[in-house]
Amino acid sequence: MERNDGNAPSPSDYLADLRRSIDEIDDRFVKLLAERFDVTREVGQLKADLGMPPIDATRESQIDEKARRLAAENNLDADLVSAVLRTIIDTVVAEHRVIASERSESD
Amino acid sequence: MERNDGNAPSPSDYLADLRRSIDEIDDRFVKLLAERFDVTREVGQLKADLGMPPIDATRESQIDEKARRLAAENNLDADLVSAVLRTIIDTVVAEHRVIASERSESD
Repeated sequence: MERNDGNAPSPSDYLADLRRSIDEIDDRFVKLLAERFDVTREVGQLKADLGMPPIDATRESQIDEKARRLAAENNLDADLVSAVLRTIIDTVVAEHRVIASERSESD
Repeated sequence: MERNDGNAPSPSDYLADLRRSIDEIDDRFVKLLAERFDVTREVGQLKADLGMPPIDATRESQIDEKARRLAAENNLDADLVSAVLRTIIDTVVAEHRVIASERSESD
């Protein structure tokens, strides 16, 4: 490994810096995911109140279209963004089913 | 549907508001994902410069542990957070392989 000139970080320091940035982004990422579930849990309660089904094909297809549009705008792979949102929405729908079944049991 | 008292939003307006919040979170989510790929692409270049392999099992297992810790801290399903990060990292590793192969071709 070459000696540093005192200004540029060594490659291993630079790699450690980049990984700290990734860790910090992942922290924000998971907090944002928690924020999203706070909202979708409210949606689940409201849909149960209104007797709406847990799954909404129109809404989900809009989200998939939006995932692909946002991917294109942000220079990301559309299939990746769609798959990530799909994974999240599958859990949301499962939660909404639980909320709906708890509601019908308590009726 | 009941008449509103003029203060509380109607259920359908409330649902529309919640969905706007979800859309806004998804915008931030995809921008954050783009930010993450900006950093991982730098990592890919640096690893190729240093002749490091595209995949790093130790680092990946640290990220999975962190995903599960952050999930617990944020009241989220650990398998969900782990699956989302796994999907992202699979794409990162695929990109790092491309960067490494381009580098070795240009040597």
